[in-house]
Amino acid sequence: MTKRVGVIGGGQLARMMIAPATELGIEIRVLAEQEGMSAALAATAVGDYRDLETVRAFAADVDVVTFDHEHVPQEVLRALVADGTAVHPGPDALQFAQDKLAMRARLAEIGAPQPDWAGVATHAELQAFIDDHGGRAVVKTPRGGYDGKGVRVVRSAEEADDWFEAFAGERILVEELVDFSRELAQQVARRPSGEMVPYPVVETVQRDGVCAEVFAPAPRAGERIIEIAARIGTEIANGLGVTGMLAVELFETTDERLLVNELAMRPHNSGHWTQDGAITSQFEQHLRAALDLPLGSAEPLVDATCMINILGGPDGVDIDERFPSVMAAYPQAKIHTYGKASRPGRKVGHVNATSDDIDEAAYIARAAAKGFE
Amino acid sequence: MTKRVGVIGGGQLARMMIAPATELGIEIRVLAEQEGMSAALAATAVGDYRDLETVRAFAADVDVVTFDHEHVPQEVLRALVADGTAVHPGPDALQFAQDKLAMRARLAEIGAPQPDWAGVATHAELQAFIDDHGGRAVVKTPRGGYDGKGVRVVRSAEEADDWFEAFAGERILVEELVDFSRELAQQVARRPSGEMVPYPVVETVQRDGVCAEVFAPAPRAGERIIEIAARIGTEIANGLGVTGMLAVELFETTDERLLVNELAMRPHNSGHWTQDGAITSQFEQHLRAALDLPLGSAEPLVDATCMINILGGPDGVDIDERFPSVMAAYPQAKIHTYGKASRPGRKVGHVNATSDDIDEAAYIARAAAKGFE
Repeated sequence: MTKRVGVIGGGQLARMMIAPATELGIEIRVLAEQEGMSAALAATAVGDYRDLETVRAFAADVDVVTFDHEHVPQEVLRALVADGTAVHPGPDALQFAQDKLAMRARLAEIGAPQPDWAGVATHAELQAFIDDHGGRAVVKTPRGGYDGKGVRVVRSAEEADDWFEAFAGERILVEELVDFSRELAQQVARRPSGEMVPYPVVETVQRDGVCAEVFAPAPRAGERIIEIAARIGTEIANGLGVTGMLAVELFETTDERLLVNELAMRPHNSGHWTQDGAITSQFEQHLRAALDLPLGSAEPLVDATCMINILGGPDGVDIDERFPSVMAAYPQAKIHTYGKASRPGRKVGHVNATSDDIDEAAYIARAAAKGFE
Repeated sequence: MTKRVGVIGGGQLARMMIAPATELGIEIRVLAEQEGMSAALAATAVGDYRDLETVRAFAADVDVVTFDHEHVPQEVLRALVADGTAVHPGPDALQFAQDKLAMRARLAEIGAPQPDWAGVATHAELQAFIDDHGGRAVVKTPRGGYDGKGVRVVRSAEEADDWFEAFAGERILVEELVDFSRELAQQVARRPSGEMVPYPVVETVQRDGVCAEVFAPAPRAGERIIEIAARIGTEIANGLGVTGMLAVELFETTDERLLVNELAMRPHNSGHWTQDGAITSQFEQHLRAALDLPLGSAEPLVDATCMINILGGPDGVDIDERFPSVMAAYPQAKIHTYGKASRPGRKVGHVNATSDDIDEAAYIARAAAKGFE
């Protein structure tokens, strides 16, 4: 539609916006960190997203700036907004995805359910929190964490010594270790004019802090959980002024409460199932929301979709050569690759499978993904 | 997967291969007729597909050459094959899509059901055919026809005078005017190693010789029709040595026979529904087949999908400005645009809608497409 969307960051999330952008006639331009990244096909610039002049030059000829990641510094974002550039999500929202202490404080203000938490500046404060919460807790760096990095379960304050040092003069975040029965994720799309569309809540399985499996919609979720999750998602999207896709990672506790674990303000691993299992994928939806276009239906297309990540194996195998055998064995599998070199534990792709039965979808997706590892 | 597919022709069929190529990690390169065409995002060369050296240079660094259209001359195709280039579909198959007389003769040899036909070189021969078939017939130019062009219903031989002149020294094709109840289309994917996957037969509605609406799977088609259509498709794909996607346009006669109308050896308008309604889209399937990769499942994802073409209107309206209103009214509609300037009657996009009810899917897709016209 001759609209130009500029995506900062050349990773797989930018890459997966290319398909829906092409179909909708949206011109997608990517500012990549380097040559040859996942989104290389749409990369029109290569440079440092922390450098204002680089970002400003990139933003000059697009209709809206959005993101593959949440790491663009606040001062760069605020300068763009001051220039009159449309930035979605904007800096006021993104600060809560960039700073976990700010997020916890803001979620407390809007009344979102969350684990007990505190910002601690000293050993003594951390130890007191641990003692008050059964002798263990989760500490998190306020900034820079992703995929399990910057998160640690501790039983004594000494175990966080390095982070106290690294964030000297600041506070680090400590949270109760939640006794959860499973993890869920709630996605919501919100456009600048305020329209919101929640996706069905999904179940996620993390391994080593990395999203490994997603079941959509969340199996065995009753109407009450579905409604509460959607309400939490829309209240956060609205309360934090998120524009674009929001993912809310949730703990479902053993006593059937939902507590907010993490937020992401961009397409999210928990939403990759929507590419093949929902009427509107999260990537199309993110583009629509960033451009302030009416949002698409978030309804599932089928009864059950399973997403399994493909991770690089220890032997650094080339996944390319596995395509024929996986395709031959699992003609129903939807394979998505990121064009990234395989390294141990690195997300290099994912497989979606749809079915009227979640166990069948899971079987196909797991087996096909395993064929690449 | 680091495989490079070269597509000759920069139209919407090449454009719609970009999305699945990106997801599968296939590098897609397009030889476009000019700058700014539908597939511009993937255009790595611009030039004349009738010029051997242009095509040869383009083919030099891809793993396989395939097509957006069927117009590349036989001598160019055969020179590529002689160079050792993989070309799918190859010239031996494509000749039957390029020459309708050759197609009719070959279909007769393999026993495919078709209307009565003849190659006629003179007025007298054509008039005799018309007289033998109730005083009317369909004449077709052997080459160069598409979207209703090169096809004419006549009641006397004089009505084909211009074509006898244009094709002097050759024969033109005449066919009986079939008394059909509806038109169907059968798609089959076939890879060089011989594996074939038929799609479910669909119903197509043509207006002014242009595909206007597709209903998938074909409503009210009994098991017998479904099986016969799939058998006709696979026998033709096999008999003509087609590699890639084959579309067989069929007449369903009032006495419940199926007769072959036309063939296309590429993704086809009758298969656009597969982008949103089947596990494997025809565009992904064509890429898999051209690369001789195992084929994907052709099963429908949902009970019913309807595809409606968006045609440029008489007032040359800019479809871009219609997106907000159409998206707001039909959040379930899947909009696909071709990035082409709107001209009266020109295909500029299509809308798919899925549902458990074909009437609902048709309502949504028709209304959304109408919103662009």
